[in-house]
Amino acid sequence: MTDPSDLSATASLPLALDAMGGDNAPREIVAGARQAVEEHGLDVVLVGRPEELGDTGGLEVVAASQVIAMDADPASSVRTMKDSSLVRVAELVRDGKASAMVSAGNTGATMASALLRMGRIKGVKRPAIATPLPVPGADTPTILLDAGANAECEPNWLVQFAQMGAVYARDRYGIAAPRVGLLSIGEEPTKGTPLVKETHKLLAAGDWIGQTGAAFVGNVEGRDLLTGELDVVVTDGFTGNVALKTLEGGIKALVNALFAAFGADERTQAAAEVLLPTLAPLYGKLDPENTGGAMLLGVDGVCIISHGSSSARAVVNALLVARELVDHGVVGHLRAAVAG
Amino acid sequence: MTDPSDLSATASLPLALDAMGGDNAPREIVAGARQAVEEHGLDVVLVGRPEELGDTGGLEVVAASQVIAMDADPASSVRTMKDSSLVRVAELVRDGKASAMVSAGNTGATMASALLRMGRIKGVKRPAIATPLPVPGADTPTILLDAGANAECEPNWLVQFAQMGAVYARDRYGIAAPRVGLLSIGEEPTKGTPLVKETHKLLAAGDWIGQTGAAFVGNVEGRDLLTGELDVVVTDGFTGNVALKTLEGGIKALVNALFAAFGADERTQAAAEVLLPTLAPLYGKLDPENTGGAMLLGVDGVCIISHGSSSARAVVNALLVARELVDHGVVGHLRAAVAG
Repeated sequence: MTDPSDLSATASLPLALDAMGGDNAPREIVAGARQAVEEHGLDVVLVGRPEELGDTGGLEVVAASQVIAMDADPASSVRTMKDSSLVRVAELVRDGKASAMVSAGNTGATMASALLRMGRIKGVKRPAIATPLPVPGADTPTILLDAGANAECEPNWLVQFAQMGAVYARDRYGIAAPRVGLLSIGEEPTKGTPLVKETHKLLAAGDWIGQTGAAFVGNVEGRDLLTGELDVVVTDGFTGNVALKTLEGGIKALVNALFAAFGADERTQAAAEVLLPTLAPLYGKLDPENTGGAMLLGVDGVCIISHGSSSARAVVNALLVARELVDHGVVGHLRAAVAG
Repeated sequence: MTDPSDLSATASLPLALDAMGGDNAPREIVAGARQAVEEHGLDVVLVGRPEELGDTGGLEVVAASQVIAMDADPASSVRTMKDSSLVRVAELVRDGKASAMVSAGNTGATMASALLRMGRIKGVKRPAIATPLPVPGADTPTILLDAGANAECEPNWLVQFAQMGAVYARDRYGIAAPRVGLLSIGEEPTKGTPLVKETHKLLAAGDWIGQTGAAFVGNVEGRDLLTGELDVVVTDGFTGNVALKTLEGGIKALVNALFAAFGADERTQAAAEVLLPTLAPLYGKLDPENTGGAMLLGVDGVCIISHGSSSARAVVNALLVARELVDHGVVGHLRAAVAG
């Protein structure tokens, strides 16, 4: 159950932002933080090497002397680099000094840091990465989890992913009755791996639904991810990560080919300019910079994982999402859903 | 090793086409067969219910009284429906009366029929479905296997998929030194499932390469599938099927959104018409109707699996691919590659 007093206490705390994480850190990260404060009135604390942050516009800085590299080994980095920005942001949440952590840094290290410092929500077997997949023509995305936290999963973990995904769909996108699908290679419950078959039985039994308001729609396929007919799709972290990156790569290849066609000659360039106002919203919707990042569901605090290539705009969106999820009390809702 | 006399004997035989398989069967299938004969000079024998085939234009018909439905259980259908068109096409190949089988019918039943009637190539542990993924801007596709034949795999099966995929890349696309990647969730050999980690070791050791001319480029991610930097990607049939369908669904969603934007008003329609000649080749390349279908690699004969929604054009392309692969002696090359 959510403790309302605890919720309001958390809600008044600043967001802890890893200023050193990401391909464009710290410049774009600091720029995003400043923009979030100036334009959206958010309360943000930067964590990193003060001397490298440039002009922070007067934002509070918590010093952290170490930086976990984008390609560093997650577990050993978090274990040995105790004064790294990624470890410190998680500690700020753990110690009640921040309401959420946000990082565009090493994804594995972000997970490890959140897990080791914040711990899991009681009863959660494994945290999962929930990534929103933008659906052209729909108001809300399809939430995919696990998008990469656990390469191997057990059936009851996937059932918890369904519970947590449903809570996330409601708290972040206002979806009261999330439609939950299980990713497989055919709609028949008899198809797929032993993991999928066993998970299907558990999800179909429905004991997990509780107060999540979710409905299990059965097995779904890769081609169903962007139809707008699903709100949450659960799968193991290996399959989920492959699906997510396949989709990103496919859309990127197609968009690049479109731009090449638009730029072919003067006539096509003129035609493309006419189409620009109509295509811009679609392009904006598909841009990962605008999704606000993924959330690590199941750790005992709000942890937002932003794309490694995040620009200032992506950082602003990630901070806005973090703020919104804290205000909605998502961690309390996750706790209640998993407790049943 | 290939037996040249056997090869030339096979090459002179007709292609056996399942006239009853597919969402648009038999009409589109028969139309495709006629077109392939009339426009491309192919030798095709239709297999199905003679009274339902309409005007076959004088094509030879082998009667088969039963039809395996698109959603029928594959194994039991093939076992019990011995006079089905799908079983008969495989028998024609087995009995030396046809050089290849082609079907747009039930994929699982096509695999079962090919496997049970033709058998496996000696030494092949499991056949795999090899599906070409069209790459915008590149001359040749990325070949993905297994795209769905085996939901669960073992490391040495994936090594054979690499061997067979390399042979296929050469025989079908003329790629002399295929670049082979292993699908995972990070480039590091330490990432992924136990299956991926073990397979990586075997592929990196290189004993499998033999005369395939292949080069192992290491682990690749979903986003690498359409970059044009890979020729063959191996994975288990669950992950491969999810990746394939995710890509199909993502491209379809994007293309639909583009068409909606093009048709928004008179100005956008006029602009879209200007772009049409430039966009048409891209659209044609991405259309599954034009890929010529997937091949089931590892059975002892050429088996082409066409999309269930195949039109006459898709059937023509599948027949052309079947003919080409027979003429190139792909089964003999697969035999040699697996034997080492």
